[in-house]
Parts: sequence; structure tokens; C-alpha cells
Amino acid sequence: MATRRLKEALPKQLLEDIYRYSEKKLTGVSLKYMMNFGSFPNKKNLLISAQFLHKELLVRLAHRVLELENLPYGLSEKPPVRKVRDWYVDSFRDLRSFPDISDYEDESKFTDLIQRIKIRHNGVMPTMALGIHQLKQDLKKKVGLNELPEIHQFLDRFYMSRIGIRMLIGQHVALHQPDTLPGYIGLICTRVSPVDVAQNAIEDARSLCMRIYGSSPEVHVYGDPNLTFTYVPTHLHQMVFELVKNSLRAVEERFSKTEQDPPPIRLVVADGIEDVTIKISDEGGGIPRSGISKIWTYLYSTAKSPISDCQQQLLEAPQVMAGYGYGLPISRLYARYFGGDLQVISMEGYGTDAYLHLNRLGNVQEALP
Amino acid sequence: MATRRLKEALPKQLLEDIYRYSEKKLTGVSLKYMMNFGSFPNKKNLLISAQFLHKELLVRLAHRVLELENLPYGLSEKPPVRKVRDWYVDSFRDLRSFPDISDYEDESKFTDLIQRIKIRHNGVMPTMALGIHQLKQDLKKKVGLNELPEIHQFLDRFYMSRIGIRMLIGQHVALHQPDTLPGYIGLICTRVSPVDVAQNAIEDARSLCMRIYGSSPEVHVYGDPNLTFTYVPTHLHQMVFELVKNSLRAVEERFSKTEQDPPPIRLVVADGIEDVTIKISDEGGGIPRSGISKIWTYLYSTAKSPISDCQQQLLEAPQVMAGYGYGLPISRLYARYFGGDLQVISMEGYGTDAYLHLNRLGNVQEALP
Repeated sequence: MATRRLKEALPKQLLEDIYRYSEKKLTGVSLKYMMNFGSFPNKKNLLISAQFLHKELLVRLAHRVLELENLPYGLSEKPPVRKVRDWYVDSFRDLRSFPDISDYEDESKFTDLIQRIKIRHNGVMPTMALGIHQLKQDLKKKVGLNELPEIHQFLDRFYMSRIGIRMLIGQHVALHQPDTLPGYIGLICTRVSPVDVAQNAIEDARSLCMRIYGSSPEVHVYGDPNLTFTYVPTHLHQMVFELVKNSLRAVEERFSKTEQDPPPIRLVVADGIEDVTIKISDEGGGIPRSGISKIWTYLYSTAKSPISDCQQQLLEAPQVMAGYGYGLPISRLYARYFGGDLQVISMEGYGTDAYLHLNRLGNVQEALP
Repeated sequence: MATRRLKEALPKQLLEDIYRYSEKKLTGVSLKYMMNFGSFPNKKNLLISAQFLHKELLVRLAHRVLELENLPYGLSEKPPVRKVRDWYVDSFRDLRSFPDISDYEDESKFTDLIQRIKIRHNGVMPTMALGIHQLKQDLKKKVGLNELPEIHQFLDRFYMSRIGIRMLIGQHVALHQPDTLPGYIGLICTRVSPVDVAQNAIEDARSLCMRIYGSSPEVHVYGDPNLTFTYVPTHLHQMVFELVKNSLRAVEERFSKTEQDPPPIRLVVADGIEDVTIKISDEGGGIPRSGISKIWTYLYSTAKSPISDCQQQLLEAPQVMAGYGYGLPISRLYARYFGGDLQVISMEGYGTDAYLHLNRLGNVQEALP
């Protein structure tokens, strides 16, 4: 059926090319490789990077187009999912019709193209969330939300792939920036201080909490401020912001109606040989063990998903502090993308601990779906 | 092959009976049921309990005999494993030849028998550990320790079954005790204070640590001392003792060579609706994420396994504070036996947190292999 629909919708040659590229394997890149390669962003290296990306993005997009066509429960037929698929097809078409990159002028045009592609896909998350919401409406009362593991696995693959595509594009584009901050190689920073990033994320999360609740619990940070490692600071900020926000909400909602001072949230930065680990502990009352799987699901999202690529939009949505969003599963994908992980353990009646493990070696290849 | 060996070793009728009982399903019992039933340990109820146990133990032992005969990698042929199997066969034979229980005199004799059976099996853990050790010697360098998942799964099933058998026997025997402490129903206590049990386990673990290292870190306990719930205090003591011991060892070994005062271990008792959770946090340096699976394996045990049923023996073994024993996987089985769980998360370069979730409803059926 999927094939039939694609056949009707797409020119024959385009369809054949999508199939052809979907048969090729994805090529993973490590943080270390991106870093070594990006350390010398001369014309020759940028040309090599563009040539690699040209092919690699075609392969990655083709895989996603076919998967988006073959989702169970009629998810592929939902208008928002078709819209997302069309973005992937359009980007595939643009890349396919782009000629072989042989000089710096081609490279420059290619960089403009992939920047436009990245912008085209900005709305993927809220749009997919809307599709999932429509699916939920269909299945209401027929299927329990936890009974759709294949949807959950698809979304994990889909969003992981999206993180990878956006990282590769973002890194290539960033290497063209004339004025880079010291320690930066594209999006990567070789001297990220997890304590500094945490402080910034805490400040953002607390000011959001202030705006919504009129007050905010304190967050105490423990760890060596001089510790630095190689990471993508924007990814780290996003993950810590999400976790601190969840803890602030839990503590605020538990203690705002009491006379008690809210207990501070504790953020510990641990300096290991394999990992830098960030633990965020709150005494916000926790959740029962039987409910822990819910925090990882995409299926509780609402149509008005607060999660989007646009941080501004995110900060303006008051519902961002409430309910289950995509924040935790997406943060876990960000952590896993470079070989790390995110674990959450809750003590019902007390509080929740989140452990963000970040691989500090950086020679792990990107996690690919 | 297994069948052939059993045929050679055992009388035909016994073998047939083992097969027959191994085809029957196990009947799980909940903590709540044991409690309600044991609240009236009159002669009639004890008779019913004995009749149930007579059949149920035959079923459980028969399952284990056949599994012990069919282990991979030649584990069934190791002399210690054959010895363990023989104990199971002997106990099966004793129970099979015990007549139908129809009056209180039968019941009394039956209680004596199962008490003897429990004692017969006291040495199962160190004996199995010796068998595993011999298997390891055979497989040395041929197979990685993590490449034997079926051995690990067998041991999980085997020890879980053992916990169940010993709980059922212990409970029946304990119901005969003339002088029970207030709040006790057999081995079960309806008013276990997790803070009190933790304090006792901490005292035991610290005095062991004192004897071995000459000093011991402090353990700070946080939680409501008046909180009580229904549980088996001996199980709880064993689990908390194991976890505190591990934390003491980690802190002691990290800080004994430094000038720094060792940071206290923190034990938090959380009072939830589903669970009582005990968290034990240390700053003993943790272990890398890549090594975390090792803490759950049975395959690091040495021939001189420090784990045995005899607490005294355990307390005299200095190696109990070092290396990987069976403590963690067995503690997790104890937790899971009544629907709880044990989770351990480590932050390399900082410390380890263990979360002991204890189901407080008690209407979960025993976990059966």
C-alpha cells in the first residue's frame, strides 16, 4: 500500500532513487572525527565534508521517507505525518538534483541548500506530535498507550536520526563561521565546563519557573568548576534545562501549598574517566514505580506540544512546566547520540534522581537508527 | 543425555514421579495470603498449610531437579552441581515417601521433615558457586564471562526458587513457635520499621568494616522512624546489610589512604503508597558505566565464596568486604520475590546510589522462576 501511494504521488525516477539510496548503509561519524576534521576548516576539507554530506544526507533521508510510509495503525495516512514525509521527500529531491560538488563555489551553494533544509524541518516535532495525537484519538479506549511499542520504537529511531542529520548539517554550516569562540570547532566545544553549562541551564529553568509559579526552589551545584571536556554545549544545555525544569516543577508543586521551605535541588557533576555524569536530585515527591514507564513515552503528548525546535516558543508556552512532554525521551536520545545515557529513578513519596551520563572520550560513533 | 544419566542413577519409579511433578505448575503465594492465613495458626490451618506444602514442594523440587540435569557447557556434570542435584533428589524422595497428611500428628512429623530438608540445603550457595568456579576454569579465555547469559538466567531462576522454597518452609515452621513477638506472623512482621532495620544492618556492617579496616565511615539515616509496613525483617536486614557493606567498602578504600575525612553514607527511607524505598548513597568513587553489568553477575564468584546461608560464617570471612560476591544479584532476587526491585546507578569518579524498592501492598504473588 505504501508503495502504491508513493507511486501515485511521486515521479517514477524520484521514487527509484529513494529506493536506491534507502538500500545504502548509513555512515556514522564520531564526535572525535568531527572535531579532528573540523580543526582545519580549509577549503579542501570543507569540500570533502560537503561531498560526504551530499551522499550521506540522501541516504539518511531516503531511509526516513520509506519508514514514514510504512507506519502501523494508519499513522502514515495522518495528514501531519504526510506533511513531515513531504518535507523529507522535498529535501531528498533538492539534494538529488544538486550537481556533484567539485569546487568551492559548489560547496558554498550546497551549504546554503542544507541550511535551508534544516530550516524546512524545524517544525517536524510539533507536527509529528500532532499526528501522534490524531492516532491517539483514533485508538482511544481501544488500545492502551503502553501497548504501542512499535510506535515508540519508530519515534526513537526517527528522532535519533533527526538529531544526527541536524548535527551533521549544523556542524558543516558552523565551520563556515568567520569568528568562532576559542575552544569551538563548529558546534563542538573542546572546553565545555559542565558546571558552567549547568549554571546557565539552571538560571533559564528557574526564571521560567519564576514566571509561571511566582517563585522557584533553589538549585545547589556540587562539582569542580574547572573540569572541562569536549561536547556540544547546546545539547548539554538542552538536557540539563529539561531535567532541572522537571525537578523545579515537582518541588514547586509539592511545596507551594505548604508552609515548609522547598528543599533545594542538588546537582552533582562527577568527573570520571569514561563519563562525565550529572546527577539532578529533587525532593519533589517522586512518582510510583508503576508509573515510571510513562515518563519515557511519546504518547502522552498533546496536540499543542510545547516541544519544538524554537527555544523562544518553548519558553513562552506555560504548559512546558506541566504534564509529560517529549522532554525526557528526547533528552535521552541526545545523551545516547554520542554514547551517553539518561537514567531516571524515582522514590515515591520522596523525590526523583536523574543521571545524565556523557561519554567523555568522544570516539564513540554517533548512534544511528 | 541428561535423561540417560538420571535413568542410570535413579530408580525408575522415582524418576517417573519427578517427571510427573515437573509437569505441574507452581502455585505462587502472596505475602498478604501468608499473613492472613498465618494469623490463625490453629491446628486446622496448619494441616491445610502442610497439605499444600507437601504437594507444592514436590512440584518445586521436581522442576529444579530437571533443570539441574540440563545445564549447558557441561555444568550439570560438575561434581558440586551433582551434589546439589542429589540434595534436591533426596528431598523430593523424602517428601514423596511421606504419607498423606490427615491429622495433627502427621502435620507435626511433616514439619520436622521440612525443617530437616531446609537444613540439608543450607550449603547450596557455596556449593553451586564452586561448580560455577569449575566451569569458569574450563571456559577460561574461551568465552567471555558476559557471554554466558543462559548460566546467569539459570542462576537467577534457581536462587529465586530457593528463596521461595525456604520462605514457605520457614513460614510454616515459624507458625509453630509458641512465643512469637508482637506483630509477627511467622517470619512476617506487620510492623517493620525500615529505619530500625536499617539501623541494625548499619551497625552490623560498620562493625564488620571496623574489624577489617580498623575504621568505618559514618552512615546518616533520613526517614520517619515511626513508619512501619509489612515485610519479612530478615530479608530486609540482609538486603540493607549487603548494600551498606558495599558502600562502606567503597568509601573506606577510597579515603583510607587520604588525609580527608571519609564522607558519610546517606540512607534515605521514602514512604510511598505503592513502595517503601530505601536509597543508599555513597561517595566511594563509583564504577564506570561500562563495568556496571559486572556487579550483577554470578560469574565473578570465587571458589571460596563468602556467601553462604550462615551469617556467622559470612561475618568471619574477611573477603566479604572485597571483590564481587553474590550479594547484589541475590539481594535483587529477595527484593523481586515480593514484587520489589533493586537498582544501582553509579557515577564514575564520585559514588554509587542503590535503590531498594519494597512493595508495601504485599498482595503481589511471589515471583516464581
